[in-house]
Amino acid sequence: MTSSANAILLMSSPDRKGLVAKISEFIYRNDGNILHADHHIDEEAGLFLMRVEWDLNGFSLPRDEIHVAFNPLARELGLNWNLFFSDQIPKSAIFVSKYEHCLYDLLLRHRAGELRANFSLLISNHPDLRSIAESFGIEYMVFPITKERKFEQEVRIRNELNKREIELIILARYMQILTKGFVESFQNRIINIHHSFLPAFAGPDPYRQAYQRGVKLIGATSHYVTAGLDKGPIIAQDVIRVTHRDSPDDLIRKGRDLEKLVLARALRAHLDHQVLVYGNKTVVFE
Amino acid sequence: MTSSANAILLMSSPDRKGLVAKISEFIYRNDGNILHADHHIDEEAGLFLMRVEWDLNGFSLPRDEIHVAFNPLARELGLNWNLFFSDQIPKSAIFVSKYEHCLYDLLLRHRAGELRANFSLLISNHPDLRSIAESFGIEYMVFPITKERKFEQEVRIRNELNKREIELIILARYMQILTKGFVESFQNRIINIHHSFLPAFAGPDPYRQAYQRGVKLIGATSHYVTAGLDKGPIIAQDVIRVTHRDSPDDLIRKGRDLEKLVLARALRAHLDHQVLVYGNKTVVFE
Amino acid sequence: MTSSANAILLMSSPDRKGLVAKISEFIYRNDGNILHADHHIDEEAGLFLMRVEWDLNGFSLPRDEIHVAFNPLARELGLNWNLFFSDQIPKSAIFVSKYEHCLYDLLLRHRAGELRANFSLLISNHPDLRSIAESFGIEYMVFPITKERKFEQEVRIRNELNKREIELIILARYMQILTKGFVESFQNRIINIHHSFLPAFAGPDPYRQAYQRGVKLIGATSHYVTAGLDKGPIIAQDVIRVTHRDSPDDLIRKGRDLEKLVLARALRAHLDHQVLVYGNKTVVFE
Amino acid sequence: MTSSANAILLMSSPDRKGLVAKISEFIYRNDGNILHADHHIDEEAGLFLMRVEWDLNGFSLPRDEIHVAFNPLARELGLNWNLFFSDQIPKSAIFVSKYEHCLYDLLLRHRAGELRANFSLLISNHPDLRSIAESFGIEYMVFPITKERKFEQEVRIRNELNKREIELIILARYMQILTKGFVESFQNRIINIHHSFLPAFAGPDPYRQAYQRGVKLIGATSHYVTAGLDKGPIIAQDVIRVTHRDSPDDLIRKGRDLEKLVLARALRAHLDHQVLVYGNKTVVFE
Repeated sequence: MTSSANAILLMSSPDRKGLVAKISEFIYRNDGNILHADHHIDEEAGLFLMRVEWDLNGFSLPRDEIHVAFNPLARELGLNWNLFFSDQIPKSAIFVSKYEHCLYDLLLRHRAGELRANFSLLISNHPDLRSIAESFGIEYMVFPITKERKFEQEVRIRNELNKREIELIILARYMQILTKGFVESFQNRIINIHHSFLPAFAGPDPYRQAYQRGVKLIGATSHYVTAGLDKGPIIAQDVIRVTHRDSPDDLIRKGRDLEKLVLARALRAHLDHQVLVYGNKTVVFE
Repeated sequence: MTSSANAILLMSSPDRKGLVAKISEFIYRNDGNILHADHHIDEEAGLFLMRVEWDLNGFSLPRDEIHVAFNPLARELGLNWNLFFSDQIPKSAIFVSKYEHCLYDLLLRHRAGELRANFSLLISNHPDLRSIAESFGIEYMVFPITKERKFEQEVRIRNELNKREIELIILARYMQILTKGFVESFQNRIINIHHSFLPAFAGPDPYRQAYQRGVKLIGATSHYVTAGLDKGPIIAQDVIRVTHRDSPDDLIRKGRDLEKLVLARALRAHLDHQVLVYGNKTVVFE
Repeated sequence: MTSSANAILLMSSPDRKGLVAKISEFIYRNDGNILHADHHIDEEAGLFLMRVEWDLNGFSLPRDEIHVAFNPLARELGLNWNLFFSDQIPKSAIFVSKYEHCLYDLLLRHRAGELRANFSLLISNHPDLRSIAESFGIEYMVFPITKERKFEQEVRIRNELNKREIELIILARYMQILTKGFVESFQNRIINIHHSFLPAFAGPDPYRQAYQRGVKLIGATSHYVTAGLDKGPIIAQDVIRVTHRDSPDDLIRKGRDLEKLVLARALRAHLDHQVLVYGNKTVVFE
Repeated sequence: MTSSANAILLMSSPDRKGLVAKISEFIYRNDGNILHADHHIDEEAGLFLMRVEWDLNGFSLPRDEIHVAFNPLARELGLNWNLFFSDQIPKSAIFVSKYEHCLYDLLLRHRAGELRANFSLLISNHPDLRSIAESFGIEYMVFPITKERKFEQEVRIRNELNKREIELIILARYMQILTKGFVESFQNRIINIHHSFLPAFAGPDPYRQAYQRGVKLIGATSHYVTAGLDKGPIIAQDVIRVTHRDSPDDLIRKGRDLEKLVLARALRAHLDHQVLVYGNKTVVFE
C-alpha cells in the first residue's frame, strides 16, 4: 500500500437534515475512503459540528482542487469550514520562561513521534533554557519583558514569528501575559497550560491559592488564549489527588506531571485537527 | 415539536469504500435526521463497525417498513446489522443472590430515568431480597440451586423467562455459574458484573485474591457472559485505589461502589444500543 | 477475644518536641493498645495535629476517668483536644429537599454497616421523600421555607433538633441556605454536599455553570458549612470526566454518582473521627 | 535554623502492646523531634510495621551511636529494623535497553530534585542510549546479552556494580530477564516497571495481550524483582482509560506516560524509605 496523507474537514453550521449524508457523499463520489467521521449537535445552540478524515490515496481530486470542488456544497449547506492535510505540519513556536519540564516533555514527545508539529523556534524572556534548545537543534531567542518594553518586545516577537511563518504558539509555562492585540492576531492558535482546574484559581500562583483553600485535588487546564486572562476555550483538563501532607512544594511537584500531560494532550488534539471552537467552548473529536 | 422515537442501526462488515456515505444517504433519502453517527475501523481485522441513530419524526418510511427498505443495501454492502427503536424497551430479568447493593442501584437508577429497561422479573437462588422486589413492584421468584438440581432449575428458569418474553438478563452479583447451554441461548444478552479488573482475579473471591497479591488498585468488570468463566467480551471497567490500610472488608466495601457504577454504565450502554460485539471484544459507541 | 470499643483522641497544639512520645506514653502506661496513630505537622502554621485510637479492652482506666486522667498532660502540652468512643454513635439529622439519590445512598450504606451514625430524623422543606423515611423507619418532618418564614422555621427546626439531642446535620442536597445563627450553633457539625469542584462554581446551578464554561471535568465537594456560602473547610472532593457530548442533563446524571460518593466519604471520615478542622482547612487522617 | 539530616527507622515485629510508645520514647528521651511517625498493624498476619522519621538537629546521640543505643530496645521488642539517614544517598544503577522515555523521566526528575538518588551508572544491552547518558554526565556501559553469554555477562555486570558500591538497581524498561542468582543478591533492591496492571498480562508484550483481550483500561506496575517473573511485591500501580479507538500503537503511547509516572512514584517512595516489604506485599508509608 502506498503511504499517503489524509484530508481532514472541520465544519460547523446551523443544524439541518442531510448534513452527514451530503458531506459523506461528496467524499464517496470522489472515491475517498472515510477513515474517521464524527459529528456533534449542540441542541441548545442549534449547531451542527463535524470532523471527517479520509485517505487521499485513491481520491480522485488532486489536493489543490478539493477546496474549489467542495465550495459549492459548503455554500449550499451554510458551512464554516477548514480543510487540512495530515502531512502539512504547522510551524510552531514554544514560549517559555524558566521552567523546563513542559518544554522537555514536548520535545521528547515530538521526537517519539507523538506530536505532528514542527517546533521551529523557542522564545523566552530569560536565557536559562537555551542549552535545551540547542541540544534539540532549535533556534532560541530571548526577549526580556519589562512593563515599559512589553509592547515593543511583542512587536519584535511578532516580527520574528511572521518571518518564519509561525502558525501556532504554545505557552509552555511562559510567565508573561500577552497583550490583547497579540492574542487577537493568533486567534485559536495560542495554546496555554494553566496550573489549576479552571475556573478555580485563575491568575497568579494557583498552587498557593489551592494550598490555602485546602482543596483535596489539584488540576491543570490547557486552553486557547483569549483577551480574558485564563478565560479562553478549554481543550483539556485533569486533576490529581492531594492531602494535608502535601506542602506547597509537593503541589508544585505533583502539578508538574499534570501540566505536562494536559498540555501534551491538548496540543496533540489540536495538531490532529480534532478541536473545533465555538462560542467559548470546544468540541474535541477524539 | 412532536415527541418521537429514534431508530438505531448497529452494523458491521468487511471494510470497503463508501460505507458511511451509502448508509447516510439511505437515511437522508428517506427524510431522516441523523442525530448520532459513529463508526470504527478495526484495521487489524479489516472490519467496519457503525452505529447510526436518527429521528423517526419526519422519516418517510413507517417503522415496520424500514427493515425491508434497508435490506437490499445491507445485502449489497455485506452488512451484519440490527435495527432498534428507542421506544422498544426490552423486558429484562435481574438475577441476584443475597447482595442488595447492585440491585438497589439498578432499581433506583431506573426510577430516576437513567436506564431504558423494563425490569419485569427478579430471579434468585435465595429468598432474602424479596422485600426489595416487592417495594418496587417487581415479581420475585426463588430457584434454589444445588449441584444436583442445577440443570433442572435452569430449565424451569428458562421456562419462566420465555413465558414473559425476557430478552435481557442482568447478573447483579448472582453467585451461580450458568450452564453452557443456558448461556448460549442468551448470546450477548447476559450482562455480568465481576468484582475484579479482569483478566486479573477471575473466578471466586477476587477481593481475597487481590488482598493476598497486594495490589494497589482494585477493579470491577462488566461483560457479556460466555461459556468461559469471566472470559466474555468486556463492556466496562473501572478501578479504585487501595492501600495497605484496607482490610479485606474494606476492599469489599470499596468494591461495592465500583460494582454499582460499572454494571450501571455497561447496562446503560447496552440499553442505548451503543455496544457492538465482534470477536471477543466490544466497541462501545459513547 | 471480648468485643470492645475504641477510644479516639483528636488533638492539636503548637508544634514542639516530645508530643508523640508523651501522648503514646500516656496510653501505654495505662495498658492501652494503640491501633492507629497518625499525626501531621503544618510547618507554615507551626501546628501539630494528631489522631490516636486505642483498644479499651484491657485499658486500665474506666472510660469515664480518661478525661480527668489525660487533662494534666493536655494542659502541659497546650492541647486542644477531644475524646471520642467508637461505640458512642452521634444522633444525626438528614436535611433533604426533593432529590432522593443522596438520601437513599446514605440510608443503604448505613444499613450495610458503612456509617457509624444514628439517623434519627429527616427534615425537609417538602413532603416528597416521606415514603422513603417511612420505609427505613425514620421520623420525617416538613418545614416549608419561604423568605418571610425562614427564621421562624429555623427556630422550630432547632427546637426539634435540641429535643432529640441531634449532634450532627447532613445536608443531602437540601436546597435552602441556613442562616448564620443556625450555622454557628452547629460549628463543624453540618456537612454539606455541593455539586461542583469548589471553589469553582459556588452558588446556584453549578452544572449549568460548568456546562456553559465548557469544562472537561465536573466535580463534587463535601464540606463543613460556615457562614460564607460554599466556603467552609473541605472534607472530600472528586471529579468525573465529561465531554461535549454530555448535555446539561447528562452532567446532572453523572454528578449524582459523584455527589453520593463524595458525601458518603466525607461523612464516614467524620463519623470515624478522622477529621480535624484548623483554620479553614481539614486534616483527614485516613 | 541549621539545615540538617533526618534519621528514619523502618521496623516490623509481631504485634504487641506498647510498641509505638516505647519507640517514640526512645527518640524523645534523646531529644529527637519526630517529623513523621506512621505504623500499620496487619491483623491477619499479627504483624506490626512502623516508620518513624526525626530531625537529627538537636538529637543528643551522634548518628554513628544510634545503632548501638537502639539495639537493646529493638532486641527487647523483637524488631526487624533498619536505620537510614536522609542525606545518605544510595548509589544507583539504571538498566535500560532501547526505550528512552523512562530513562529521561528519571534523569529529569532527579535534576528537578524529586529523587534522592545518585545515578552513578547506566547499564544496557544496547549502545543506543549512550548519548543521553553522556549529556547527563553518567557513565554508560554496554553488555550485549545472548542466551549463551547471559550468565557470563551478569558476572561482569555484578563486578562493575560491586566496584562502584551500587546499592540499588532500577530496571527502566530493561528487556532482559535477570537470573535467579543475580536477583537474590539484590533482594528488595531491584525495582522494575512492568507495562501492565499486574497480575493481569504478566510476561512479554502486555499491550498486545491487553489489546487482544479488549480491556477498557491499561496499567503499569512497579515492583521489587524476585525470582518469579513479574511476581514480586508491588510498590505502585496506575491505569489509564482506553477505548476501541486505541490501536496497539496508541496503547504503547498512552502506556509510556503511565510507565514513567508509576516507576517514578515507586522509586521516590523507596528512596524516601517509605516502603516496607513483608511476605510478598509492601506497606508504603506515604
